[in-house]
Amino acid sequence: MGMNEAHGAVPDGLLGALRANAAQRDLAGGHAAAEKRLIAEAGLLTIAVPREFGGQFTQVPGDGGLHWRDVYAIIRTIARVDSALAHLLGFQCLQIVSVDLWGNAAQRANWLQGTVEHRWWWGNAVNPIDTRLVAQADNEGGWRLHGKKGFCSGTYGSQMMTVSAHDPATGNPVFAVVPTTRAGITVHDDWDPIGQRQTDSGTVSFDNVQVQAHEVLARPNTPRASLRTLVSQLVLTNLFVGLAEGALEEARQYVLANGRPWVNSGVKQAIDDPYLQQRFGEMRVQSLAAALLADRAAAQLDAAWQQGEALAAGTRAEVSIAISEAKIGAHRAALETGQQLFDACGARATNAALALDRFWRNARVHTLHDPLDYRLRDVGRHALTQELPEPTLYT
Amino acid sequence: MGMNEAHGAVPDGLLGALRANAAQRDLAGGHAAAEKRLIAEAGLLTIAVPREFGGQFTQVPGDGGLHWRDVYAIIRTIARVDSALAHLLGFQCLQIVSVDLWGNAAQRANWLQGTVEHRWWWGNAVNPIDTRLVAQADNEGGWRLHGKKGFCSGTYGSQMMTVSAHDPATGNPVFAVVPTTRAGITVHDDWDPIGQRQTDSGTVSFDNVQVQAHEVLARPNTPRASLRTLVSQLVLTNLFVGLAEGALEEARQYVLANGRPWVNSGVKQAIDDPYLQQRFGEMRVQSLAAALLADRAAAQLDAAWQQGEALAAGTRAEVSIAISEAKIGAHRAALETGQQLFDACGARATNAALALDRFWRNARVHTLHDPLDYRLRDVGRHALTQELPEPTLYT
Amino acid sequence: MGMNEAHGAVPDGLLGALRANAAQRDLAGGHAAAEKRLIAEAGLLTIAVPREFGGQFTQVPGDGGLHWRDVYAIIRTIARVDSALAHLLGFQCLQIVSVDLWGNAAQRANWLQGTVEHRWWWGNAVNPIDTRLVAQADNEGGWRLHGKKGFCSGTYGSQMMTVSAHDPATGNPVFAVVPTTRAGITVHDDWDPIGQRQTDSGTVSFDNVQVQAHEVLARPNTPRASLRTLVSQLVLTNLFVGLAEGALEEARQYVLANGRPWVNSGVKQAIDDPYLQQRFGEMRVQSLAAALLADRAAAQLDAAWQQGEALAAGTRAEVSIAISEAKIGAHRAALETGQQLFDACGARATNAALALDRFWRNARVHTLHDPLDYRLRDVGRHALTQELPEPTLYT
Amino acid sequence: MGMNEAHGAVPDGLLGALRANAAQRDLAGGHAAAEKRLIAEAGLLTIAVPREFGGQFTQVPGDGGLHWRDVYAIIRTIARVDSALAHLLGFQCLQIVSVDLWGNAAQRANWLQGTVEHRWWWGNAVNPIDTRLVAQADNEGGWRLHGKKGFCSGTYGSQMMTVSAHDPATGNPVFAVVPTTRAGITVHDDWDPIGQRQTDSGTVSFDNVQVQAHEVLARPNTPRASLRTLVSQLVLTNLFVGLAEGALEEARQYVLANGRPWVNSGVKQAIDDPYLQQRFGEMRVQSLAAALLADRAAAQLDAAWQQGEALAAGTRAEVSIAISEAKIGAHRAALETGQQLFDACGARATNAALALDRFWRNARVHTLHDPLDYRLRDVGRHALTQELPEPTLYT
Repeated sequence: MGMNEAHGAVPDGLLGALRANAAQRDLAGGHAAAEKRLIAEAGLLTIAVPREFGGQFTQVPGDGGLHWRDVYAIIRTIARVDSALAHLLGFQCLQIVSVDLWGNAAQRANWLQGTVEHRWWWGNAVNPIDTRLVAQADNEGGWRLHGKKGFCSGTYGSQMMTVSAHDPATGNPVFAVVPTTRAGITVHDDWDPIGQRQTDSGTVSFDNVQVQAHEVLARPNTPRASLRTLVSQLVLTNLFVGLAEGALEEARQYVLANGRPWVNSGVKQAIDDPYLQQRFGEMRVQSLAAALLADRAAAQLDAAWQQGEALAAGTRAEVSIAISEAKIGAHRAALETGQQLFDACGARATNAALALDRFWRNARVHTLHDPLDYRLRDVGRHALTQELPEPTLYT
Repeated sequence: MGMNEAHGAVPDGLLGALRANAAQRDLAGGHAAAEKRLIAEAGLLTIAVPREFGGQFTQVPGDGGLHWRDVYAIIRTIARVDSALAHLLGFQCLQIVSVDLWGNAAQRANWLQGTVEHRWWWGNAVNPIDTRLVAQADNEGGWRLHGKKGFCSGTYGSQMMTVSAHDPATGNPVFAVVPTTRAGITVHDDWDPIGQRQTDSGTVSFDNVQVQAHEVLARPNTPRASLRTLVSQLVLTNLFVGLAEGALEEARQYVLANGRPWVNSGVKQAIDDPYLQQRFGEMRVQSLAAALLADRAAAQLDAAWQQGEALAAGTRAEVSIAISEAKIGAHRAALETGQQLFDACGARATNAALALDRFWRNARVHTLHDPLDYRLRDVGRHALTQELPEPTLYT
Repeated sequence: MGMNEAHGAVPDGLLGALRANAAQRDLAGGHAAAEKRLIAEAGLLTIAVPREFGGQFTQVPGDGGLHWRDVYAIIRTIARVDSALAHLLGFQCLQIVSVDLWGNAAQRANWLQGTVEHRWWWGNAVNPIDTRLVAQADNEGGWRLHGKKGFCSGTYGSQMMTVSAHDPATGNPVFAVVPTTRAGITVHDDWDPIGQRQTDSGTVSFDNVQVQAHEVLARPNTPRASLRTLVSQLVLTNLFVGLAEGALEEARQYVLANGRPWVNSGVKQAIDDPYLQQRFGEMRVQSLAAALLADRAAAQLDAAWQQGEALAAGTRAEVSIAISEAKIGAHRAALETGQQLFDACGARATNAALALDRFWRNARVHTLHDPLDYRLRDVGRHALTQELPEPTLYT
Repeated sequence: MGMNEAHGAVPDGLLGALRANAAQRDLAGGHAAAEKRLIAEAGLLTIAVPREFGGQFTQVPGDGGLHWRDVYAIIRTIARVDSALAHLLGFQCLQIVSVDLWGNAAQRANWLQGTVEHRWWWGNAVNPIDTRLVAQADNEGGWRLHGKKGFCSGTYGSQMMTVSAHDPATGNPVFAVVPTTRAGITVHDDWDPIGQRQTDSGTVSFDNVQVQAHEVLARPNTPRASLRTLVSQLVLTNLFVGLAEGALEEARQYVLANGRPWVNSGVKQAIDDPYLQQRFGEMRVQSLAAALLADRAAAQLDAAWQQGEALAAGTRAEVSIAISEAKIGAHRAALETGQQLFDACGARATNAALALDRFWRNARVHTLHDPLDYRLRDVGRHALTQELPEPTLYT
């Protein structure tokens, strides 16, 4: 598979533990406190924290640190067994990146080292199209926040969070970092979707919440600063790839353990069925192609990252297109593999306790984050005109 | 749509009642006693009982009774709002047909009139590839049954049931009708799948259950008698068509009520989105084609039925191929539409309380009844060689 | 198949003759004078001429004449062996319909009876988006035509033709019927496409061509008059269905005659290959579904036709949608079957002399008449909003 | 694109010259003597000849020579503009590899240096499933050849050729190298297919042709020796990728130069059409994924090659699977892109003189080399069971 070599970075014990009760936790939904602890204990909370702050991430080739391709390999590996927890880890990385890209020296030192020292889980209250949360300037460079925010992945159970709010005076967004325990913040346990059930993506209410001046992130208007969106989109892409690979692996295990030849097939064992073999061929080629597209995008992101502040808008746009290309392939592979899993396994695999439909449900929920159609349009427009797109909220 | 004209046969009140709590009942699973009562009260239990026994079915064109095309239209209409209850009604018809095709004059009179008089719901314990239920001959032309049977749709909550058991002395199956309350029968409430959750398709145990000689169905070895399998397969086909049509209709209602234009779309309202329109076009053409294939098969089944005992094996085989052709189209339409529903409706439609994934889950469970691959093989072999197939357990 | 019952209407001798040299004529391109003569001799030039004028068409059910469903069955049957000549016959019908719908009593009598008496072949110079042909009013209710027209199917070798020209004074189109031999008309033999090579769809030049007042067609502004577009679109649809059915039949014949099992297949004869059977299954289901969609549209067109001048705009719009639905299915079936034909037949079938790629090439050329995307959009918009569309140049 | 960086290895002048008359030469078919000369003059005949014999190929990383990934990049680049001539170059490499893998020291020195010195074009008469060519042992370790061989790509116009013949005494194949001018050899100019028209893949007759002992290739029974098949399959794969990329590029150029907005589209220029953009997006993602799969397989082949005689059967089998995975993706991308090219360009692009259907025809002919179905089966069987396959004639 694409990023197999990085598999070692995720302890087998963690993967086994997540897989063991993934079906049960999918049915239950809610907060996976114990499993989040296992992830923290495996040292994965700091994979996106630069080495200079005590973390594992580097932009220097060959210094032994993790690059984006490694970070995504870890996320993808976990997504094979549990795409909800892989999402939490992916968004942990995303919030860390927000600090790394948008923070000043003091903020970076404070919050990135703090993540290493205190093993903070980070939550996300930066939903770009939800403008219900309003920011009101105080007189000291800080703000007061009023309102609510939806789809706040990982905020429930987090120690720190990033927030975006709408400043009606200017129409601009305000970005900040606050501890989740800050007075006036209520994290609601109201996330109950058909898939990705343990991502804690519920609503957060803000009742006159104070944001101090030193907590405000001054997002620079540079190509590099806009890489945050790309990091986020490539997290999703790798979740989809992991879902596709995981569905294929579950189907494989199920057929090897439980497969029976169809009554009219003329074969003695299920693994010799020509149509079953064909189906595994289809699932394999599709998930492999998705993995390669995602790997290519990660390599481009690494290269762009290593350019630091010198990153040009055009290069950033090319990475953006590569990520969109990858996301299209991964989106489809995840849905299709989640569906074909059942053709491979047969009727008995529909027992609710197995929850094998979680692969399709997880893919289905997450692939609606933003519409495939418009991503395909962007890729096609670029393929046709070669014009590089401007950054948007999703690309 | 294909069989729209027959819609009137299902009272709008019944459809409205079923749709109103379909999501909730899908989440709860278990037995839909109240809704089964509504179906009985709407007079639908006898749609497959011949008019001569007080029912509504006829094989005489133009006499005002229902033909197969009408029966299937009713099943399909219900499947649009609740494919689990539509399955119960479809299998009600299937058991009635078993008696009609395989019963002698006294049996037909007794059980078909009984269905009209007592409003019996029928259950199915005739799973052809489950041989765990054993029949032991007594000395009076009857049998004793020992063992269990899986996937016994509709048996929980039924008054009468058809049974098949394995006679180890001859290797042949034994068919019979018994009341569900017969001593020794235990109907387990153990059906818990990812879809079609209210079809009561659990296990039935038989502990030395007596079958009297007059309860044994002597299945004739005629083309007409083998139509039972085709009736069953066309029930499934119409459930799939109903699922596709229902998913399209839910998507339509949802978009009209809740649709928002995508932020980068450049349109003012969702219904003007070119990709959304395209998607509805795809769903429509696919579900319409499936409906036409199913209608064609129903017309062929009606024609075959009207030939009575004179039905030739070749004609029966042609109907079988037509049903397989329809089932392939319907299978795919149901899965695809159940999936695309979400692309049409967007992320907010994944709220678990809406249970909009039930269309895909219902389709996914039911389309695994027997593998599409082998049905496609049979259709293809016929298309290539023009040789008509022999009846099998599924065709 | 869908309209099999009407097959008898096309003499087997004609079909055999067309099939015998279809490959050779495809390679040669140009004008099929001999084959057009065979079609005329088979009596097919008048299938769309109403019985009252000596033709075969009727709108009275049960009077023994041909309805649209029969006319299309004939066109489709011919398209199975030669979609170029089927197109010529389809457009023969289209020009006759233009006279029937748009002509006054004298015009209809003159030209429709003339078609019967003189066995006229009609050509088409009514291309709605080509405005290079200009009409200049004379003082006597007639016009002078200057310019040229492209894609004039059937004009080469015709005796009569319908023309549309652009009146710059009003911006309106002018419609007329003229003999192809009219002074100033030059029919160019410049049609050289990759498929549909014998449709004689070249350019026609008009050098001060006189159109007399009695030759002008006063197209009424009624729903019925706008049925011409629908007749045309359903011609195309049935050509596509015929192409799909023809490709399937050629593949079948080729495999039965020449099929060899693949070296690694483990089967003794090609017809037992599981993947080959699957492929025929796919081709069959897709072409059958296309045929059913086309049959449904023809039945709706017949019903609309029988309403005569009372035809409501809404009913006309519903027929239009039904035809678009059918055309989408047929478009795809023709392309896909034309491509899969080769997977079924293998490498030896690519010999140029067999010209088996003509099915795909014919489908490919003809399916570009107007874009599938916009037809799908129209169907989807209607499926979503239920609003009935206005007539356009193509719907 | 995947191997863009190697583009430079093919002079732009050569690409321009091949593209300039590709359509015309496709229509004409036959032998492309002038264009073969251009390829030779560009120095491409020796890209697979090891550097030690004066060629350009190396298995030493970083020494400035070409690796398989570079050789395939060159073949793919040419295939974008002319897949027939790219096939000739690919098969040039394949014959050179046959000598390199199967020849003894003297043979390698003789024929590989000879290729450099004399600019030989090599032809292929090694068709594994055509056993019509019979070898009869002489008394001196040589053979006499009688019979004929089909699909002998590149033999017409070659100076040297590899041959396989059937030894009826042992049932084993005999491999040899002979000059094309050897007495008794007749190369027929009888290749006339629907695509890949200038690959000179006609029949070769052998009338008592002498093969001397030193001309016999003693194919070793080692994993490394069986890499010849993989080199061949990856040539085909890269031809398909090149076809997909070439079709996309032609579509792009055509739309930019000639695109008109559709009459009902509501956009001012074709490049703004949402469905056109979508279509380019689809073509791009599919051809990009195919390129990545092919690149991955080439990297694996390079790694296997560098193991020399130590290559293990298992490693060889893994490369084989990687190539099959790539070939499946490339097969589909080539066909699909060749077809969608027309949806992008519209009806006017079907003019025969443009021969834009050559992309589809070329893909269609070449993708029938061996059936996709069995390759998918092999990939699926491996994905399911993880068992590594034995070498076959095609894998």
